[in-house]
Amino acid sequence: MDKRKICVVVTARPSYSRIKTALRAIQNHPQLELQLVIAASALLDRYGSAVDYIKQDGFSIAAKVFNVLEGENLTAAAKTTGIGILELSTVFDNLNPDIVVTVADRFETMATAISASYMNIPLAHVQGGEVTGNIDEKVRHAITKLADYHFVASESALERVIKLGEKPDVVFNTGCPSIDLAAEIEGISGLDFDPFQKYGGVGSKPDLANGYWVVMQHPVTTEIGSSRIQIEATLKAAYERDEPILWFWPNVDAGADGTSTGIRAFRENHNLKKFHFFKNMQPTDFLKLLSNSKGLIGNSSVGIRECAYLGVPVVNIGSRQNSRDRGKNVIDVDYDPAAISAAMKEHSKNSRTPRSFVYGGGDAGIKMANLLAELPLKFSKTITY
Amino acid sequence: MDKRKICVVVTARPSYSRIKTALRAIQNHPQLELQLVIAASALLDRYGSAVDYIKQDGFSIAAKVFNVLEGENLTAAAKTTGIGILELSTVFDNLNPDIVVTVADRFETMATAISASYMNIPLAHVQGGEVTGNIDEKVRHAITKLADYHFVASESALERVIKLGEKPDVVFNTGCPSIDLAAEIEGISGLDFDPFQKYGGVGSKPDLANGYWVVMQHPVTTEIGSSRIQIEATLKAAYERDEPILWFWPNVDAGADGTSTGIRAFRENHNLKKFHFFKNMQPTDFLKLLSNSKGLIGNSSVGIRECAYLGVPVVNIGSRQNSRDRGKNVIDVDYDPAAISAAMKEHSKNSRTPRSFVYGGGDAGIKMANLLAELPLKFSKTITY
Amino acid sequence: MDKRKICVVVTARPSYSRIKTALRAIQNHPQLELQLVIAASALLDRYGSAVDYIKQDGFSIAAKVFNVLEGENLTAAAKTTGIGILELSTVFDNLNPDIVVTVADRFETMATAISASYMNIPLAHVQGGEVTGNIDEKVRHAITKLADYHFVASESALERVIKLGEKPDVVFNTGCPSIDLAAEIEGISGLDFDPFQKYGGVGSKPDLANGYWVVMQHPVTTEIGSSRIQIEATLKAAYERDEPILWFWPNVDAGADGTSTGIRAFRENHNLKKFHFFKNMQPTDFLKLLSNSKGLIGNSSVGIRECAYLGVPVVNIGSRQNSRDRGKNVIDVDYDPAAISAAMKEHSKNSRTPRSFVYGGGDAGIKMANLLAELPLKFSKTITY
Amino acid sequence: MDKRKICVVVTARPSYSRIKTALRAIQNHPQLELQLVIAASALLDRYGSAVDYIKQDGFSIAAKVFNVLEGENLTAAAKTTGIGILELSTVFDNLNPDIVVTVADRFETMATAISASYMNIPLAHVQGGEVTGNIDEKVRHAITKLADYHFVASESALERVIKLGEKPDVVFNTGCPSIDLAAEIEGISGLDFDPFQKYGGVGSKPDLANGYWVVMQHPVTTEIGSSRIQIEATLKAAYERDEPILWFWPNVDAGADGTSTGIRAFRENHNLKKFHFFKNMQPTDFLKLLSNSKGLIGNSSVGIRECAYLGVPVVNIGSRQNSRDRGKNVIDVDYDPAAISAAMKEHSKNSRTPRSFVYGGGDAGIKMANLLAELPLKFSKTITY
Repeated sequence: MDKRKICVVVTARPSYSRIKTALRAIQNHPQLELQLVIAASALLDRYGSAVDYIKQDGFSIAAKVFNVLEGENLTAAAKTTGIGILELSTVFDNLNPDIVVTVADRFETMATAISASYMNIPLAHVQGGEVTGNIDEKVRHAITKLADYHFVASESALERVIKLGEKPDVVFNTGCPSIDLAAEIEGISGLDFDPFQKYGGVGSKPDLANGYWVVMQHPVTTEIGSSRIQIEATLKAAYERDEPILWFWPNVDAGADGTSTGIRAFRENHNLKKFHFFKNMQPTDFLKLLSNSKGLIGNSSVGIRECAYLGVPVVNIGSRQNSRDRGKNVIDVDYDPAAISAAMKEHSKNSRTPRSFVYGGGDAGIKMANLLAELPLKFSKTITY
Repeated sequence: MDKRKICVVVTARPSYSRIKTALRAIQNHPQLELQLVIAASALLDRYGSAVDYIKQDGFSIAAKVFNVLEGENLTAAAKTTGIGILELSTVFDNLNPDIVVTVADRFETMATAISASYMNIPLAHVQGGEVTGNIDEKVRHAITKLADYHFVASESALERVIKLGEKPDVVFNTGCPSIDLAAEIEGISGLDFDPFQKYGGVGSKPDLANGYWVVMQHPVTTEIGSSRIQIEATLKAAYERDEPILWFWPNVDAGADGTSTGIRAFRENHNLKKFHFFKNMQPTDFLKLLSNSKGLIGNSSVGIRECAYLGVPVVNIGSRQNSRDRGKNVIDVDYDPAAISAAMKEHSKNSRTPRSFVYGGGDAGIKMANLLAELPLKFSKTITY
Repeated sequence: MDKRKICVVVTARPSYSRIKTALRAIQNHPQLELQLVIAASALLDRYGSAVDYIKQDGFSIAAKVFNVLEGENLTAAAKTTGIGILELSTVFDNLNPDIVVTVADRFETMATAISASYMNIPLAHVQGGEVTGNIDEKVRHAITKLADYHFVASESALERVIKLGEKPDVVFNTGCPSIDLAAEIEGISGLDFDPFQKYGGVGSKPDLANGYWVVMQHPVTTEIGSSRIQIEATLKAAYERDEPILWFWPNVDAGADGTSTGIRAFRENHNLKKFHFFKNMQPTDFLKLLSNSKGLIGNSSVGIRECAYLGVPVVNIGSRQNSRDRGKNVIDVDYDPAAISAAMKEHSKNSRTPRSFVYGGGDAGIKMANLLAELPLKFSKTITY
Repeated sequence: MDKRKICVVVTARPSYSRIKTALRAIQNHPQLELQLVIAASALLDRYGSAVDYIKQDGFSIAAKVFNVLEGENLTAAAKTTGIGILELSTVFDNLNPDIVVTVADRFETMATAISASYMNIPLAHVQGGEVTGNIDEKVRHAITKLADYHFVASESALERVIKLGEKPDVVFNTGCPSIDLAAEIEGISGLDFDPFQKYGGVGSKPDLANGYWVVMQHPVTTEIGSSRIQIEATLKAAYERDEPILWFWPNVDAGADGTSTGIRAFRENHNLKKFHFFKNMQPTDFLKLLSNSKGLIGNSSVGIRECAYLGVPVVNIGSRQNSRDRGKNVIDVDYDPAAISAAMKEHSKNSRTPRSFVYGGGDAGIKMANLLAELPLKFSKTITY
């Protein structure tokens, strides 16, 4: 019997790390053939091209699609999606996959969803059913309505997808594949690599022996006018704490200019003796870094997911992760230096927080591969009410 | 105070006729400025360009966008949508509207929805919440999840949109603006124009004095392999009835090649003494034609909507209008010449069927204009559950 | 040593037939690997998709690109080219060819030329240096200025390319590969297939035993307003001659709507007892058809090239082939029924005209493959004056 | 009589400054209406958006088109051009200009040329006929072959355009409009603004009273692998001279990443006490800055043009301006710190170099406007040989 061709489209470095164990499970499955398409910011150097990591991880790339329109504004985000549809349609027409998989809810993932659903290719959506409160919110649920199968990451997500009118027999709580990676590094204690040496970056090289914080804060697309003010609150709180800070540059979203400008201006005007800035890091190393840190500050979904599983303290800032299920490892605060400082202080009382398995138990990738091998190939559906 | 700029994007001739009374109400509203954008098949001659009608109706066009990719296959439908996004984003960036309005659920309307929602322009969706069962079904509900306001056409649609997680205070049952046009011609009795003279077309010119049938049947995008067989059932039934048939060419959807080829081949092989083929007709004239006919045959939504209001008998064939609310004027049949014939015979017993107001009472356009003038301008939302 | 990857982009069925022997020679060359990309109207059914022929001929297709924007107007032609660039760039990025080959001067071939030259991939242009007098004229010489190598079809073309500032050592008179095909069928006498049975088409099936004419007339892109009047002159002359006419539908150029409408209207209004209409034909069969005909009527370049080699009489109508080198087989006339009739009559005096080798001797494909294997790989150049 | 609509497409800030006096002359001409379209990098903040300057200068913008694809590689350059065609075609279709004007030879100007020429809109090309030696060289001459009128900047350019087969009666030596601006600031002595205060930027703020050098060096698109090494030679020479350096960031061309990275790394590793970095400057201020400087270093065409007129010393590095006509103000050197230093030393002997009028006398804009008002509107041409 011919293998089923499973085309997974990865459009951002973080999405790659999130889906990586599923890619491996698809590649290893005897009845599946992986067609990996890399597009959008996952190809761009200034956001940390995912291509080298992907090759190191032993995957081959079926097609690359450059489609990020410059501008870092909302018009550019829309046009990036339009170009994505135009080109992914050609890619799908040439690769002829049996199922297309799209990951999460970044704006440009809509291109994958539209191309596949319009071309009558069964579409599986990973990580639907969650709730946030900005453009991702619109994108995520719209993709749910275009998708034929739903691989969700939590029980509340499963319930929400069914409420959206999807038949229960096409919705599966696989857990989140990002937890699979966290499970892999679980037993390792201590940092087994030197982050400055391995990943370069700019800024001072503080001594990490007595602990450090990790910062990752992205612009919020519905609040782009405020992205500079928002990042400045975090910079101020982190600067005043006077402990080592390992800071990661933001995603290429609308508003990233404000965030980047805020960081650059702060660097010009302050002597940041304990700050180091990274562009990106291999997912596994990033998890090790978090696992050994005093905590994560910002608004990354990693704080909600992997850090829950690992028990890493998180200061979650602002609205970006609003309404997502979270464990006891998270303190939510506003864009307020004092509140951020207070949360860091509170977390400093304990080195670890309780673990939580709300996003799965570490076998999401394998569950997905098995579903992709077994699900009927269909692309027509009707709302359940 | 500045007028609110309301940008309405029309992508197909039938959508124009459906939204026309709303356009007029917007144009006449003292607090609104209409920005009318014409795109996709609405610009193409072979589907009956809407441009001339639009100008005759007294509207000026703010921008035209050619974006239909040739191929009449599913890849082309996806790419048409991608090009639409790319270009409508530029159009919106230059027109700078306060609200964008998108109509119904044709595949390419997704381009309007994505450009507006990604650019943080409040999006109003006309005619959400209905149920069909093919690609339109996916598109319609996905647009609901992208839209900020919903102007639905029936009570059941209103309930469905709310179930989809939309807040009740952004969902309005305005009725369908297509009914407004039907209300306008309601009092007129008899045909006040000669369809052959006014609209040309090809084929014989049967005497219409003793009654005639109207046929309008589009390909079903999830059944494109069958579009030729499907049209042949209708051709056969219509041919055998031996009464005058006024036949309208189908939309430019995937599968239209099959439908067109089927019609052409049937014409080559049969002596169609009572068939006349039209490319298109002005909406008002088309309603008059229906109002005076023995009935409508095919799968057009006109049969479900305007014909319900007018009490015109309808033979609705196949799955395209599945699950849409309908009045007592409709007999549903499969792609089966015998079943189609039987339904025609049944309808012939009565000249009119009972009227039904399930799709509104003829004031939808005015209701929409008033809402567009008063609604708060917002573009951020969260699912209600 | 790795084989050189030669990417040939074919955008129309006639271009495929023109370049076919070169494709075969590339495929057979021990140092070359063929990457065949099929795009634009070469993929469209209504212009006779080249895909099936290509597979029958034993070539595999590396990528397909649908990029014809509907409209059959000039805006659509420009946009088709833009989409072509967008997508061919992705194709080249993924195929990574050593040399790209673009054929002739249709508007959309500019997409191939721009993508390759902008991406620093050496570009070989087949059939530059000729003269016509419409948009092709602009396109052809612009591509010459973008190309690194020139495989021209005649001595006068070679001289013209050098005058355009190209270094003589990158310009080669290979002859035209279309002549290679003509050389292959040269010895065959009589039609060895039934065109009606093998190619279908519509219209009557006249007896071909006592001779027939072939018509192929395309719209002229700079005279699109006149395309209907132009085709009517030919229809009238052909109709009045009362001999069998085998008519081929035109290319998908701006103006094709006028041409097609003219043909359809003429068919409605005349009883065409001796006309048969074909969508397309395999190149070899088409050459056999010409070789056995009374002559070719219209404005196809086949009349100038292959018919010269074969000695087939040609009535060349209008400006489309203006200034191209021609043999003694051609009588040039205006869009005038009387002049067309007179030329047909004149040609009828002799069954064959003298042969001419102005476009090469039948080994163009092999010459090109050898050049592609040996030329230095460079993509930078400076004008010679 | 209706005014002729003249659509000028500006795709980069430097092109705006180059064409500005022509825009003003068109706007002021009684028989002309200016339609100004701003696209590509002219809209992007990180290259210094031209939009604010344009508005300050009293022009209104008819349409904006974001079309720069991110990647700063050659694939992105090609795709940027493709998107440009797609969207400019729509813009032209809606603006309906009588003549389109395209400026110079940046890769994306090809989009303007193709859209206009394919749509049968007469195309005027400013600054054809020059010689360089990289991708601009291909682009420039290809646009000449697409254009209907040629407004060239020097006698040698005029001769070259005619040799390219253009009829002499459509080629005009207007001089370069950039010289018009230089003529305007000619009488002003001394800097009448504080560049640090007015334009911000980063780096030290050296005392400019005793002289300073200006650096502007762009990547060379056919040598992108070397862009970092090339910029380092200039950085080294400028650093060692120990005089104030006012450095301008490069264009958004392929290779700009290498140039930018080289500059950033040099800043990290050297204490640049006399370097200041600007993103951009208003054209008039930039000319004043040059006029008062010790000289210009790099590969900008400003060194060849405006500096010739003004008599400013220039150290021209590398191949980018190869073969362009130049005055006695230029010393050409390779990417070699020693050679650059030596040229700076040589130039320091004299404060000014002799002036040269090879690029015109300061009335190019007015000449162009007059031609645009009077030239016949035609779009068909044939090569002269």
